[in-house]
Amino acid sequence: MTDNTVGKIPLTLLGLGAMGTALARTWLTAGHPLTVWNRTAARCEPLAAEGAMVAADPAEAVAASGPVVLCLLDDDSVDEALAGVDPAGKDLVNLTTSTPGQARARAAWARERGARFLDGGIMAVPPMIGVPEAGGYVFYSGDRAVFDAHRDVLSVPAATTYVGPDPGFAALHDVALLSAMNGMLAGVAHAFALIRDEDIPPKDFAPLLAGWLAAMSASVHRTADQIQSGDYAKDVVSNLAMQVAGAPTLLRTAEEQGVSTELLTPYVALLERRLADGHGAEDTTGVIDLLAR
Amino acid sequence: MTDNTVGKIPLTLLGLGAMGTALARTWLTAGHPLTVWNRTAARCEPLAAEGAMVAADPAEAVAASGPVVLCLLDDDSVDEALAGVDPAGKDLVNLTTSTPGQARARAAWARERGARFLDGGIMAVPPMIGVPEAGGYVFYSGDRAVFDAHRDVLSVPAATTYVGPDPGFAALHDVALLSAMNGMLAGVAHAFALIRDEDIPPKDFAPLLAGWLAAMSASVHRTADQIQSGDYAKDVVSNLAMQVAGAPTLLRTAEEQGVSTELLTPYVALLERRLADGHGAEDTTGVIDLLAR
Ligand SMILES: NC(=O)c1ccc[n+]([C@@H]2O[C@H](COP(=O)([O-])OP(=O)(O)OC[C@H]3O[C@@H](n4cnc5c(N)ncnc54)[C@H](OP(=O)(O)O)[C@@H]3O)[C@@H](O)[C@H]2O)c1
Ligand SMILES: NC(=O)c1ccc[n+]([C@@H]2O[C@H](COP(=O)([O-])OP(=O)(O)OC[C@H]3O[C@@H](n4cnc5c(N)ncnc54)[C@H](OP(=O)(O)O)[C@@H]3O)[C@@H](O)[C@H]2O)c1
Repeated sequence: MTDNTVGKIPLTLLGLGAMGTALARTWLTAGHPLTVWNRTAARCEPLAAEGAMVAADPAEAVAASGPVVLCLLDDDSVDEALAGVDPAGKDLVNLTTSTPGQARARAAWARERGARFLDGGIMAVPPMIGVPEAGGYVFYSGDRAVFDAHRDVLSVPAATTYVGPDPGFAALHDVALLSAMNGMLAGVAHAFALIRDEDIPPKDFAPLLAGWLAAMSASVHRTADQIQSGDYAKDVVSNLAMQVAGAPTLLRTAEEQGVSTELLTPYVALLERRLADGHGAEDTTGVIDLLAR
Repeated sequence: MTDNTVGKIPLTLLGLGAMGTALARTWLTAGHPLTVWNRTAARCEPLAAEGAMVAADPAEAVAASGPVVLCLLDDDSVDEALAGVDPAGKDLVNLTTSTPGQARARAAWARERGARFLDGGIMAVPPMIGVPEAGGYVFYSGDRAVFDAHRDVLSVPAATTYVGPDPGFAALHDVALLSAMNGMLAGVAHAFALIRDEDIPPKDFAPLLAGWLAAMSASVHRTADQIQSGDYAKDVVSNLAMQVAGAPTLLRTAEEQGVSTELLTPYVALLERRLADGHGAEDTTGVIDLLAR
């Protein structure tokens, strides 16, 4: 067996939950010297057997050489883990899911303590880590120099997408995509509820639904173009008035099928408000203006 | 110029709105003898100039040879147009958007009058009609013999997908897909609202969002498999408990960004109810059970 650790930069990882463990394995497999710490020490054992060095506490972990990656439950866990730890001179890469505001506050916290900071938002589940063909990736934002310095090692578990110097942008991109998915999954749940008492095998319906949603997802390019140009009527294919005219068929069908309309009505209500404001000939893009508080 | 009408079956179309006009053009271009009727007669003129025969009233249109396609505003328009018309012995193909219940009632109406009936739900906008590469298609359901007899002529404007003998199934598939899209578009609106006051060009964000939604649309295959097997924990990647744990980050980010949570909360509320019912280790699929009235 050859030693694949030669020339590989060392790093530290705090947090060996489902995601942290998946990340750790890819770095160990790629030959990176890895120091780990986890609140519940027992979770370090399997990785120690695979070659990881185990730190006794967060301070010892942070003091080890190389960048310090955090993958804890939430921002409060990061607070707890780093309480009393001196990160001066270190590069911190926080893959803990945060809000943009939390990420910005963490960046300020690091700066005040003489550390450089990069935030990350993981667009993958643990089985996709270390499996490039699964298509997972991590959004990064914050200090570009930190990203450039550690890009190679950060690329080991998943592809990287740097989205800007604002440390809140990785979290913002992460949450925006998850929020859009939340909407899609709500629509998908409603669609399956509509057919559930009919003689339509869900597995026959699924390819039609998946194909339709994949095709319709391309509409976000038109939406982006309309927002960027400020012209919500640009290239409109099915205007707001037509969408509102079609809504009663959706609501009435739900009632016929005995399905609650609770997942449909909030968006329909916004479309109706926007139509009442006189924007019927535009695309539906203008509902975005109604969402601003 | 050669005569491309030789051997082409004749048909009738009632309704020359945006969609009817697009359909009519494809049949005329393909050489099918076409009889048209529209409530507002002026809309027949351009098509007459392109070779269509214009019927004076719906009865005359229905009496012309070949199948009778309807593409009117809604089911009430069909009622009005066909009031007092005898469709005995005819094949009716109704492409007017309906609910499943309306389509079933229309099928019964046709049967009682000695006509055969096929319902259709158009998954395309007018510019996609006659443009196969645009990917539009029409769901058909009802009398299979009518579909088989007229499949070729029905395939001229758009691809066809027959989804079963129940005349309500085309409408049900149509509405289910549109409802799912409604959810996706709600999520997309929320996502764009989150980034709108930030230095993130919408056109830079769009490819990330489109790619994510297209990738995530594949999750409907797992959902279908779980419903069909009755095992909502089958192949779960991110369980209900984890989804609920992640929701506060979505809601808190919306608040930080000054965006209303109204499009997010109904689905989150369902996830929370399902978790409270003790299904945390399952996939989120079980929310479908909560939608049934
Ligand atoms: N799993 C996914 O699918 C996924 C996907 C994308 C992003 N993420 C993000 O990745 C991060 C980790 O997720 P995960 O799936 O690994 O979660 P997990 O399996 O629940 O692990 C949570 C980790 O956080 C630690 N922790 C919790 N509270 C702590 C505290 N107060 N002080 C110190 N450590 C604490 C836990 O330590 P103990 O072992 O001592 O409990 C454990 O290492 C989260 O921010 C999550 O949102 C996860
Ligand atoms: N356009 C789309 O993007 C699209 C996509 C999928 C499905 N569809 C469906 O296709 C059908 C037609 O849509 P469209 O876009 O062509 O609509 P449209 O442009 O508004 O045209 C409506 C048609 O219905 C006729 N009509 C309305 N009320 C009537 C009545 N009481 N009696 C007789 N005729 C009446 C109109 O006649 P007048 O000319 O006399 O007003 C016109 O021919 C609808 O069911 C729609 O849901 C449309």
